[in-house]
Amino acid sequence: MDFASDNASGAAPEVMEAVVRANAGYVPSYGADDVMERVTARIREIFEAPEAAVHLVATGTAANAIGLACLCPPWAAVYCHAHSHINADECGAPEFYTGGAKLVGLPGEHGRIEPGALVRALATAIDTGVHNVQRGALSLTNATEAGTVYAPDALRVLAHAANGYGLPVHLDGARFSNALAHLGCTPADLTWRAGVDLLSLGGTKNGCLGVEAVVLFDPARAWEFELRRKRGGHLFSKHRFLSAQIEAWLADGLWLRLAAQANARAAELARGLAALPGASLVHPVETNAVFAALPRAAHRAAHEAGARYYLWPATQELEGPDEDPLTARFVCSWSTTAEAVARLVGAFAAA
Amino acid sequence: MDFASDNASGAAPEVMEAVVRANAGYVPSYGADDVMERVTARIREIFEAPEAAVHLVATGTAANAIGLACLCPPWAAVYCHAHSHINADECGAPEFYTGGAKLVGLPGEHGRIEPGALVRALATAIDTGVHNVQRGALSLTNATEAGTVYAPDALRVLAHAANGYGLPVHLDGARFSNALAHLGCTPADLTWRAGVDLLSLGGTKNGCLGVEAVVLFDPARAWEFELRRKRGGHLFSKHRFLSAQIEAWLADGLWLRLAAQANARAAELARGLAALPGASLVHPVETNAVFAALPRAAHRAAHEAGARYYLWPATQELEGPDEDPLTARFVCSWSTTAEAVARLVGAFAAA
Amino acid sequence: MDFASDNASGAAPEVMEAVVRANAGYVPSYGADDVMERVTARIREIFEAPEAAVHLVATGTAANAIGLACLCPPWAAVYCHAHSHINADECGAPEFYTGGAKLVGLPGEHGRIEPGALVRALATAIDTGVHNVQRGALSLTNATEAGTVYAPDALRVLAHAANGYGLPVHLDGARFSNALAHLGCTPADLTWRAGVDLLSLGGTKNGCLGVEAVVLFDPARAWEFELRRKRGGHLFSKHRFLSAQIEAWLADGLWLRLAAQANARAAELARGLAALPGASLVHPVETNAVFAALPRAAHRAAHEAGARYYLWPATQELEGPDEDPLTARFVCSWSTTAEAVARLVGAFAAA
Amino acid sequence: MDFASDNASGAAPEVMEAVVRANAGYVPSYGADDVMERVTARIREIFEAPEAAVHLVATGTAANAIGLACLCPPWAAVYCHAHSHINADECGAPEFYTGGAKLVGLPGEHGRIEPGALVRALATAIDTGVHNVQRGALSLTNATEAGTVYAPDALRVLAHAANGYGLPVHLDGARFSNALAHLGCTPADLTWRAGVDLLSLGGTKNGCLGVEAVVLFDPARAWEFELRRKRGGHLFSKHRFLSAQIEAWLADGLWLRLAAQANARAAELARGLAALPGASLVHPVETNAVFAALPRAAHRAAHEAGARYYLWPATQELEGPDEDPLTARFVCSWSTTAEAVARLVGAFAAA
Repeated sequence: MDFASDNASGAAPEVMEAVVRANAGYVPSYGADDVMERVTARIREIFEAPEAAVHLVATGTAANAIGLACLCPPWAAVYCHAHSHINADECGAPEFYTGGAKLVGLPGEHGRIEPGALVRALATAIDTGVHNVQRGALSLTNATEAGTVYAPDALRVLAHAANGYGLPVHLDGARFSNALAHLGCTPADLTWRAGVDLLSLGGTKNGCLGVEAVVLFDPARAWEFELRRKRGGHLFSKHRFLSAQIEAWLADGLWLRLAAQANARAAELARGLAALPGASLVHPVETNAVFAALPRAAHRAAHEAGARYYLWPATQELEGPDEDPLTARFVCSWSTTAEAVARLVGAFAAA
Repeated sequence: MDFASDNASGAAPEVMEAVVRANAGYVPSYGADDVMERVTARIREIFEAPEAAVHLVATGTAANAIGLACLCPPWAAVYCHAHSHINADECGAPEFYTGGAKLVGLPGEHGRIEPGALVRALATAIDTGVHNVQRGALSLTNATEAGTVYAPDALRVLAHAANGYGLPVHLDGARFSNALAHLGCTPADLTWRAGVDLLSLGGTKNGCLGVEAVVLFDPARAWEFELRRKRGGHLFSKHRFLSAQIEAWLADGLWLRLAAQANARAAELARGLAALPGASLVHPVETNAVFAALPRAAHRAAHEAGARYYLWPATQELEGPDEDPLTARFVCSWSTTAEAVARLVGAFAAA
Repeated sequence: MDFASDNASGAAPEVMEAVVRANAGYVPSYGADDVMERVTARIREIFEAPEAAVHLVATGTAANAIGLACLCPPWAAVYCHAHSHINADECGAPEFYTGGAKLVGLPGEHGRIEPGALVRALATAIDTGVHNVQRGALSLTNATEAGTVYAPDALRVLAHAANGYGLPVHLDGARFSNALAHLGCTPADLTWRAGVDLLSLGGTKNGCLGVEAVVLFDPARAWEFELRRKRGGHLFSKHRFLSAQIEAWLADGLWLRLAAQANARAAELARGLAALPGASLVHPVETNAVFAALPRAAHRAAHEAGARYYLWPATQELEGPDEDPLTARFVCSWSTTAEAVARLVGAFAAA
Repeated sequence: MDFASDNASGAAPEVMEAVVRANAGYVPSYGADDVMERVTARIREIFEAPEAAVHLVATGTAANAIGLACLCPPWAAVYCHAHSHINADECGAPEFYTGGAKLVGLPGEHGRIEPGALVRALATAIDTGVHNVQRGALSLTNATEAGTVYAPDALRVLAHAANGYGLPVHLDGARFSNALAHLGCTPADLTWRAGVDLLSLGGTKNGCLGVEAVVLFDPARAWEFELRRKRGGHLFSKHRFLSAQIEAWLADGLWLRLAAQANARAAELARGLAALPGASLVHPVETNAVFAALPRAAHRAAHEAGARYYLWPATQELEGPDEDPLTARFVCSWSTTAEAVARLVGAFAAA
């Protein structure tokens, strides 16, 4: 009954086996391994992007922050959702890697940037000369921090607003596979065809040990990315262990199968929770996270039964009147079982 | 016959098995795994340092650069060997993480800083007021880039010179286990008892997939290290896979056995090469690297036989008069076999 | 009729004469001039702060950004008003000097931070571990960007909220003298007695050529300030020309007389504008700036008469229906004459 | 008898008068003053560079560091003389502004980079991939820190070596006017015709209060310079006081007359000192600085007579055997009198 985060799950067996296989013998280091060549070819094929540059790092924060640093200068404003991971959960990594850019947190329901808010932010930044930071980049997250998705059209609207000012678009795809599994569109539709310039394609949360592929649809800044990666300490000497993870993860649609499993468990969980007395869903459940309000007494019962998940925000208290609703986040992973979901719902129902 | 680098080798079976074992079930993320607690306890025990703080990252560059950033401010001079990894092989990562410190490359034979050079550099930095960078930290490497070691007394002489000005001492221990295996002293003797404040303890090159333990003997800056690690994108969500590597590597003396194997192969190789006509060793062979000068014709023969290693410096050319000596670096790893060594010597001897 | 900014005015005659006098002969450079010693003594006396460290720079942005960098680390959240100069008008200088801190823009009417907003921001930052930036510093502005002031009690409320979390308080005093002239309290009451740790005391806008005194009430970080100033290129070799300005400006209460003059002109202007048909004041007029809404036709008339000032925000257009109100900012300086004020009011009245 | 530095001198009367004149009335701020337009036109004319962009800052460190940041990325190696101001006297300002570039200090007699040393440094940086900093820029100083000059041909040799690798060339011209006065060539010959891309043209040390003109012969990076200047806190609101200095300084050849005066005094001083028993010149005297070795007893006599200058290096001691030679630096300024030179020589001669 661990619903704290998909990053508390392990690696899929296929991925772990690939890591074990990759261990044989001597292999050129620092990304010169043969597997990496195949990974690049595979990602170009999947994304219908024969020119794209592909580089691997081990964490999502590195992928996002190094990617953004390649897209905008230190004096940039980076437009993002107020609750986006880059703004709220990376301890200022984007500021560090960009050399001090300013993240402009925008509002929007259910984790999605409200297009009007972006348009207003861009428009009011007009003509300030050197006196403030300059429009720099747009950063989107798909699936969002609220577990919702942007469909290709929704991405395109935001990307177009940014492109109108010449801004590039970064996509934090820590849960890109979950969004893709939900939407059923092509990877190209959800990235470069919708205006995305650089994608952080997350493997870690969905069945890998620790690997993210950074896909630069415009390879012009690929060398800069490599230098920033090295300088940030993110170039692995035994790089084969990163390559092997991604290769196995993308093989035979594994990444999408794992994502679909996680999404399906979340849908079940949402149905189960929504049916409980006094319960309600906070955000539409579109991928692998469920945000729900439940009576405090139900939370206490679940905690006593050993359920692991976060009250969201974490400042809420388990002590207090039974009937008060507390909101919580439940994240399913590729390895969450239907049985665990049923037990969790049962624990809440027991209250 | 791959002698290009110890980082082209794989992981030891015990370490890989631990990674596979660590994959079971849900585990708290971001370093809150149980294994990490045991790792900290074990390192404190091995180093006789019950107060030490221990944190893991995946690369040596991250360990060095984040560690240095905790030891000195942006306006610091960091004294190091001119050929040290932080100065010559990290694309300016220390400058990046410190916010622009200045690395002062010092001379010294066989990769070891000449104490007089350090003393002079420290003394001539006196009393410059705000007009130049301030004395900041001493960074040592053991084993050195030349494959030699500092014995505890040699470390102490340099550390004392730095301490006289209030400077802390960083130790790049990417091959610390190789140095320790050679010297046969205690880990404490080779670190805090000799004046080291912060150690980058390298697992990657000696049998791990990718993990380095940063040991802060003075835990006062441990929280700062954690923030800098996160901000640098180096905090793993599935941290258990780092913890598991180090735990297995330190268990039952595995780390020292692996290091001793690599050192033994290098000693054999050194003997074999030194006996060849026209050959000579460039540095004393004390750990797992052999630097040797051999006639160009011998290099050509070895390359044709499929030997992999680097001419050092790489600007030398295989084309030219047969008898000219070319210098090269050969690195043995924990997995280098006696048979591979014999074949390499044989390939050179064939010329 | 130039009301664009107080920084478009010249230097007061007393200040310019002091600069000319300071030109005589050879004088030790880099702040070792005798005048600087007297300046430090004088500021300590005026602020009843015998331990304070005092350093000069030539611009307000430098004073603010270097000061903030001394108060908080790169991973800090700096709480400030959303419209504060450091957040909206310095092109990210605080981000640059701090190494990438995150400015958290807070709301509040009339340029003053709403205390509840500060308290909520501080409280909701609780217990996020390393995952987001850490509470770092509070930055206040007095007089505010809206021309209003914080009285000592109002400062104290905000400073206490920050101090409760151990945060230091920076005060952007680009128009500190105007605030002081309005309030009639002591400099100590408006700074350290109210919880301010570091003051940027602005001379430039109020009668100097270009000089700001940074006053560190806690001198512990004074040396760091000096290093950051030098490293930022803000240590003047011919420092005497900075010292001389401040000395003359503080002599015989000149700074407060100049501020009072500017404030008096703004009060006259406010009265004059408020009496016009269709006009209203946007903010209370407490120092030397007037924010007023006036019919578009009146603005057109004033522009044709040669009046200089900014529509605020600048995105408003002079073209459009006559009766629409446009808001504008009018800034008086020490050199604004009553006659210029009368002419400006007359120009608006003519419409 | 003050020979400590040219920056201990005052401003030339013509420059001070211009500053006083510039004080009249309201003037647009932040560089939009009319004088600045004339300054740009004048510098383009003098340098025969009709496209050049010109921007002013108040210190040489700002001019150098911001300029370098526009020429190379954070992962750059900046090749410069080991004793250059940017490497030895700016507290790491270039590292700060570039975001952590690495300054590579090159040897060379009399303050001039030895061309072979540059060529070797460039050549040995070949083909290191991402593992070390990349060749970034060449920074030259003219006149050098040793008071010597590079003639156009000497500049061209070094610039060509850099250009061969695509590197831009920065020229620290803190004493450019002294070099020009010595050589008698055109400003164009000593800058862009010799391969210089960006010049820091120093007014401060030679008759101004505090102003340096940054001349970008390739204006492509002019906007970036403006943003970096603002972000560094170096954009003056009352910019007219910078413009006025440079305008007066460049009018009617004043800058070259002042430089010629300073150079002439240094030549007299060199002749006087060289004639003393036990004395010798350390560097050729080509501009306004004299480096000489004199017996310790002579130094003691001069100090007792009130002479001000620096022993160079400053670690030498006045206490010790009389006959030991101590080396010293004597700097003449535009305001140094022939009488002061004679008195200084007399003071040494008295010993």
